[in-house]
Amino acid sequence: MNPKLSTAAVQQATRRAIVKGSQHWPHKSPALSRVMDNHSHLKLSPEHDQPMGTWSTEQIRNATSQSVMMTWAPGKAKHNTPLITHGEGVYLYDDQGKQYLDWTSQAVCSNVGYSLPESVLQATLQQMTQLPFLYGGLGLCETRARLSQLIADILPGDLQGMVFPSSGSEANEAAIMMARRYTGKYKVINWYRSYHGGTANSQQATGDFRRWYGGDHVPGFVKAFHPNPLFWDLAGATPEERTQMALNMLEEQILNEGPDTVAMVQFESVIGGGGVIVPPPGYMQGVRAICDKYNIVMHCDEVMVGFGRTGKLFGFQHNEGVIPDIVTAAKGITAAALPLSMTACRQHIMEYFEDNPLGWGSTYQAHPVAMACAYENVKYLIQNDIIGHVQRLAPILEDNMRRLAEHHPCIKQYRCIGLFGCFDVANPDGSNPQLQHTVIDKAFVEYKKAYTANGLIGLMRPPHLHVAPPLVITEDELLDGFERQDKALYVLDDALGY
Amino acid sequence: MNPKLSTAAVQQATRRAIVKGSQHWPHKSPALSRVMDNHSHLKLSPEHDQPMGTWSTEQIRNATSQSVMMTWAPGKAKHNTPLITHGEGVYLYDDQGKQYLDWTSQAVCSNVGYSLPESVLQATLQQMTQLPFLYGGLGLCETRARLSQLIADILPGDLQGMVFPSSGSEANEAAIMMARRYTGKYKVINWYRSYHGGTANSQQATGDFRRWYGGDHVPGFVKAFHPNPLFWDLAGATPEERTQMALNMLEEQILNEGPDTVAMVQFESVIGGGGVIVPPPGYMQGVRAICDKYNIVMHCDEVMVGFGRTGKLFGFQHNEGVIPDIVTAAKGITAAALPLSMTACRQHIMEYFEDNPLGWGSTYQAHPVAMACAYENVKYLIQNDIIGHVQRLAPILEDNMRRLAEHHPCIKQYRCIGLFGCFDVANPDGSNPQLQHTVIDKAFVEYKKAYTANGLIGLMRPPHLHVAPPLVITEDELLDGFERQDKALYVLDDALGY
Repeated sequence: MNPKLSTAAVQQATRRAIVKGSQHWPHKSPALSRVMDNHSHLKLSPEHDQPMGTWSTEQIRNATSQSVMMTWAPGKAKHNTPLITHGEGVYLYDDQGKQYLDWTSQAVCSNVGYSLPESVLQATLQQMTQLPFLYGGLGLCETRARLSQLIADILPGDLQGMVFPSSGSEANEAAIMMARRYTGKYKVINWYRSYHGGTANSQQATGDFRRWYGGDHVPGFVKAFHPNPLFWDLAGATPEERTQMALNMLEEQILNEGPDTVAMVQFESVIGGGGVIVPPPGYMQGVRAICDKYNIVMHCDEVMVGFGRTGKLFGFQHNEGVIPDIVTAAKGITAAALPLSMTACRQHIMEYFEDNPLGWGSTYQAHPVAMACAYENVKYLIQNDIIGHVQRLAPILEDNMRRLAEHHPCIKQYRCIGLFGCFDVANPDGSNPQLQHTVIDKAFVEYKKAYTANGLIGLMRPPHLHVAPPLVITEDELLDGFERQDKALYVLDDALGY
Repeated sequence: MNPKLSTAAVQQATRRAIVKGSQHWPHKSPALSRVMDNHSHLKLSPEHDQPMGTWSTEQIRNATSQSVMMTWAPGKAKHNTPLITHGEGVYLYDDQGKQYLDWTSQAVCSNVGYSLPESVLQATLQQMTQLPFLYGGLGLCETRARLSQLIADILPGDLQGMVFPSSGSEANEAAIMMARRYTGKYKVINWYRSYHGGTANSQQATGDFRRWYGGDHVPGFVKAFHPNPLFWDLAGATPEERTQMALNMLEEQILNEGPDTVAMVQFESVIGGGGVIVPPPGYMQGVRAICDKYNIVMHCDEVMVGFGRTGKLFGFQHNEGVIPDIVTAAKGITAAALPLSMTACRQHIMEYFEDNPLGWGSTYQAHPVAMACAYENVKYLIQNDIIGHVQRLAPILEDNMRRLAEHHPCIKQYRCIGLFGCFDVANPDGSNPQLQHTVIDKAFVEYKKAYTANGLIGLMRPPHLHVAPPLVITEDELLDGFERQDKALYVLDDALGY
């Protein structure tokens, strides 16, 4: 091995690779036909010396066209995406001076809006100044101890072991690894219509179309039906009988999959992006009991609803008497101000991993700066009783959703819990105008224009229309938001032919 | 569906789930035998009102014991992990006042040490104040445009399309999805001994023991041998002939896998954690030619070495004339001060994704605060010629590695490039004292004690001993580090029976 690369040697070798070929292979090795200049020109263009905030719209749009890629949407979507300059309270502002009320907390995550608490800003800056990075396997720090203890304190029961990845996807990857290694079993059961992330396991766990992008090839994931399916019904004269039927269906599925092969049941406490679907009373208690019966780990994915969205700290707490074995969260843990997520587990699982490596890891796990931000954010939620505020606004949100559903024929039904609501849109003949994975129906294009024109910004997943404003929204702002949406819904009524 | 959960209904349903069972299933549904209090007690204990930095060692250790979990190491490792209070320059300090020279930039990432440039701190704070979050699919911003353009400017050729995930794992997940969707093919070829991440695809791409934790079940990943294998050799009288042989081996592997099934060749430009293994001159040119011949995407994983570690901006630039189709990076992009990574691709790939969704996504993709930090960090690297500094120190690092290898019989060989070095340790009989996945040999336990006692901190992967100080280290500090390591190596010589 030659550890040093002299230019002469490289040139010689490059030539050789091009012309020589192998004596042992019946055809010539391919030649490097496209020799490309791969040197960096490490000179900053003067544009980069301008203070941030001074680039013209044209400069920004040009740079964006040249180099910015989108992810879930095709890249060309960027040409119609607004250029946001700043935020304040629950509002975002674009380069044209237009104000938008954030009607879905963006990706259901900017829970405290855009004027961050001073304590969050100060703690972040202090950590960056004092200890901007600490690799979790090399050193411990006060911030990690404090955040771990704080979250263990507010989580119920013995949910006390903490891992802090950087995204919801990673938190769910860690949870899957945790359950598999703890149980020695492999299969994971998830709901259709759920979303768990964009990395291979978390994407395969996902029950919507985003799973298909990965080729649907990753083994070990089994899909179950949510107790509130979309296009069919469970037998039963009462909701209670239908819930019992759903539990029987789940148990039969587990028995047919083989209880000794099922490591984990991994459900969103409330299906979020898939349409704010709350399990019926009694269902999660049944899931807990089934998991106990067959030694299956129960995991509640709280990436979207954790830290107050539903009016409880965690969504699973709506199900009396139930504590999952693993809870994941992200978004709300920092109000999205820095990338951080959490994988929490109960004591028996934590104890197992005292002697065994978790088998998941990341350089940025337990990132001190992100943890400092999360620590002050969670303290802020508690000290300012944000969850009480959500509980106080929840009936107002529901009243207004009911009012809009009654007013607008295009709204078939709605669901809500806390400050998290969803309208389902239907055609005049009762059919579904669109599935989440199909090309956007032109009626929704019209609706989106009206939504924007009325000064709303938010994620749109037709036929579902989410309502999920920042948790710190005032009553007046909430009512104002519904007025804006009301106006936009008239356009949708028209566009769908009502 | 009943969107509202009344307590009475929950209690009724819970009872029912416990006692009723199904009429349709031959056995009773399981009962919720462990009803647990799952309410949160949202009161902060007074400890959390104390200013950060004031907890006692005992408080921190207690909280850590109760709630902190480790990842790659068993949890009990935390009891022997130092408690780090702050950093300054290239030094970390623990709660006992002990100073450590950071000898591996922690996880080869804290490249500018612990006194961050003022511009990085200010830009981060400014972004958090002005626009702390923007979901990449909903809005564009100046920071994203600028960082994308800056990196496109300094990357060679037409590597210009930018995605900004939050971790190296996610960057490689995005790269894998990108290559598969762009080519319509599925298989990915990686090197044994490489590391690509902890999420399911990136972990399966990994060529070391960490892949096994996931059960080694994820399809579509094929392992190839690096041109510098560890325990065997390629035929050939000269290095050039052996390189040609390695290329023939790779091409034969691709032909046997089926070129029309291979989406991507995904190699670390320099194998990092696996032992600073640099491909021999001419090899990467051959890989580029093979990829061109068979329409395979060439991806260089620069998560560990990107942004200057090897004395070039990117490690692949040591291979004249070669530009990969995809480049991923992380760590160095922010010097680990905030979680951010990058997946960059060439124009033809970016253009394909103008009309097609990438199929990978994340809430925190293009996080504005992390991007603001990265932007100023990359500008700092350029404005202060950090790469020139690495080039100037590289011969000093090599001289000292040679000196230590000559002095210490336990060192079998070393490799280095830029400020990235690795010693291989051998037993007196020439055998390998340990593999990376086996329990740590007691000689290395002794060595680690001596390493710590001499005031070094760093990752240790016996039989490989890495040297990778922050890129901003001074010559004096570098020499001091080698003196510390020299002392520790005498202990290792003894412990191995030399």
